[in-house]
Amino acid sequence: MTNWTLAARAEKMNPSVIREILKVTEKPGIISLAGGLPSPKTFPVREFAEACAAVLGQDGASALQYAASEGYGPLRQAVADFLPWQVDPDQVLITTGSQQGLDLVAKVLIDSGSRVLVETPTYLGALQAFTPMEPHVVSVASDDEGVVVEDFAAQAGTGADRARFMYVLPNFQNPTGRTMSDARRAALVAKAAELGVPLVEDNPYGELWFDQPPPAPLTARNPEGCIYLGSFSKVLAPGLRLGFIVAPKAVLPKLLQAKQAADLHTPGFNQRMVAEVMKGGFLEHHVPTIRALYKQQRDAMLAALEREMAGLSVTWNRPDGGMFLWVRLPEGMSAIDLLPAAVERNVAFVPGAAFYADEADTRTLRLSFVTASPAQIDAGIAALAAAIRATTP
Amino acid sequence: MTNWTLAARAEKMNPSVIREILKVTEKPGIISLAGGLPSPKTFPVREFAEACAAVLGQDGASALQYAASEGYGPLRQAVADFLPWQVDPDQVLITTGSQQGLDLVAKVLIDSGSRVLVETPTYLGALQAFTPMEPHVVSVASDDEGVVVEDFAAQAGTGADRARFMYVLPNFQNPTGRTMSDARRAALVAKAAELGVPLVEDNPYGELWFDQPPPAPLTARNPEGCIYLGSFSKVLAPGLRLGFIVAPKAVLPKLLQAKQAADLHTPGFNQRMVAEVMKGGFLEHHVPTIRALYKQQRDAMLAALEREMAGLSVTWNRPDGGMFLWVRLPEGMSAIDLLPAAVERNVAFVPGAAFYADEADTRTLRLSFVTASPAQIDAGIAALAAAIRATTP
Repeated sequence: MTNWTLAARAEKMNPSVIREILKVTEKPGIISLAGGLPSPKTFPVREFAEACAAVLGQDGASALQYAASEGYGPLRQAVADFLPWQVDPDQVLITTGSQQGLDLVAKVLIDSGSRVLVETPTYLGALQAFTPMEPHVVSVASDDEGVVVEDFAAQAGTGADRARFMYVLPNFQNPTGRTMSDARRAALVAKAAELGVPLVEDNPYGELWFDQPPPAPLTARNPEGCIYLGSFSKVLAPGLRLGFIVAPKAVLPKLLQAKQAADLHTPGFNQRMVAEVMKGGFLEHHVPTIRALYKQQRDAMLAALEREMAGLSVTWNRPDGGMFLWVRLPEGMSAIDLLPAAVERNVAFVPGAAFYADEADTRTLRLSFVTASPAQIDAGIAALAAAIRATTP
Repeated sequence: MTNWTLAARAEKMNPSVIREILKVTEKPGIISLAGGLPSPKTFPVREFAEACAAVLGQDGASALQYAASEGYGPLRQAVADFLPWQVDPDQVLITTGSQQGLDLVAKVLIDSGSRVLVETPTYLGALQAFTPMEPHVVSVASDDEGVVVEDFAAQAGTGADRARFMYVLPNFQNPTGRTMSDARRAALVAKAAELGVPLVEDNPYGELWFDQPPPAPLTARNPEGCIYLGSFSKVLAPGLRLGFIVAPKAVLPKLLQAKQAADLHTPGFNQRMVAEVMKGGFLEHHVPTIRALYKQQRDAMLAALEREMAGLSVTWNRPDGGMFLWVRLPEGMSAIDLLPAAVERNVAFVPGAAFYADEADTRTLRLSFVTASPAQIDAGIAALAAAIRATTP
């Protein structure tokens, strides 16, 4: 009998709660406010088709050959040009989606037992990426303005137990939709520099602002103290799996070696397609169309919540961008217990508990306002309200 | 000052020797017999262009959306159908190149200090993928027929130190080009089952046979005791980064969770492109054209070696397929020391020492016969012989 002894880390890995929930959304007729899928209406299919033809027509053999682990030169340059602070293209590493950036950061910075700080709540995919490296994940208190800096300092650890980094998603956070204020960013960056703790800044949603751009990134304020993760998934399309890391020279060579060991390089064909699509400033007129669409959908959800949740003691926030809205149920209710009643009424969401590294606020839940249409949002929120009424103790 | 404390594993990671050597091959006019690049002549550019248009035209939005971590259903089915033993598509996990398969296997099966067995020599990329999980890598003696089964048994370890797996590349191995005999495969599979040691079988080159197909895979002989890694890089194109794992149900769910944490999923667009190209049995008439080309190039290299190495006490093998040929220099010579003299004469190769997990045979070197043209092979081997003559002690 073959003895499949699994690594200790394998026991700690778990299937994504979200992916499990998404399975119930395959039930015919269900309205899913659960997933984090960008609206397919925003995918520039025609431009991609033209780019494919151009890339394969001009130099198909190079596009289909093995390529550099760092990424395709013109795409690295385009990323550096696009970012709002001085970035050398040599500091840009193209990744197979932003998720891979998290995997590489974990490999290079986390030892078993290393202290790693996260927001309360935080992005589930980051927790999943960090888990295989067996960190000691510590939640830092967070409020409507983002990370509470005093608690960051209190949790940062000292000496050998100093946090290897704090993971922050400052813009239209997944799951809460909240944005870190300018003052809070300045204070966090200053305190992190004072304590010597690196910041890992994840910014997949930053371009999706509705009325005004969010404050400057943390990394722009202290490039030598931060690793920045970016993504093309929300401004072009997720199915190409293209993201990037911007890192200081202190860690970039090791991230590159980890990248090489992980998958040699990100598909060169996809990199050239996106570089081709981005030529001539395509994003400058494309991204505003996504912003307009998502703002309209957020407004539809806010209006539906106002209408349907009247008198239910349910609270929610008003995100300034991104894809998600955060809801809190009345005292005594649990979003996990609510889910079956909601699915019975043909609506799905993600219980907030999935996003907490330790003690969860089980009254919270995440709603996506970008995948369903405004009419579906109306029906979905009405069904959610009905489920809450039926479940209220 | 930010304190970038790196993980212990990061100190063990190193840049690929091969990638470093490949940099010298960028010198204008150099003939590179070093790289492992498939001949771009074999890339079906036109078919890919048609597939792109079809995939984006038929259902572009789905191709560009987030997708299942397991992979695209029709591609998993195509892989299962293509393999020469009974494979359930549910056992197939699509990976971002075969290199990612090695990364996932390492994460799921290797603890720090775990015994892992490899051939002598072995694929450098596998050593790089395993290193971040900090295994104790042990070389098993290997001869012209492959792994020496007696030494496998001697090195397998017992109890808590039993090898987590043995990594084997049985067909036209990278770096040696050698193929494991049928008898040796049968004996290794039997001994592994007896000792309870899993086999990880890597088969990127198996389709590239010249006169007759290689013996049946190890996994076909004991599917419950083996993980099988396959790739589209050598039969279609490497720039799409598409590979796959076939694993028994004892480990597949954990490999899937590791995959999800690593990059969510392999680009769905690329998976659909390849599934589209494979429709109607494309590989059945495409792969024979690659075989014919590479056989002709191997013959060119063998003829050049016969001609140029006369009287030099240099030996080499005659691979039955694949991309590489293995050369041994006269006693007292080192391939590492030879390299600068060769580059001076405008030819590059990879010193064999790069491929040994521990004690290296420094007289060995790897030549690729697929990237350079027959005329370049002639000139390159003549230059190599001149370098050997100039360096002979």
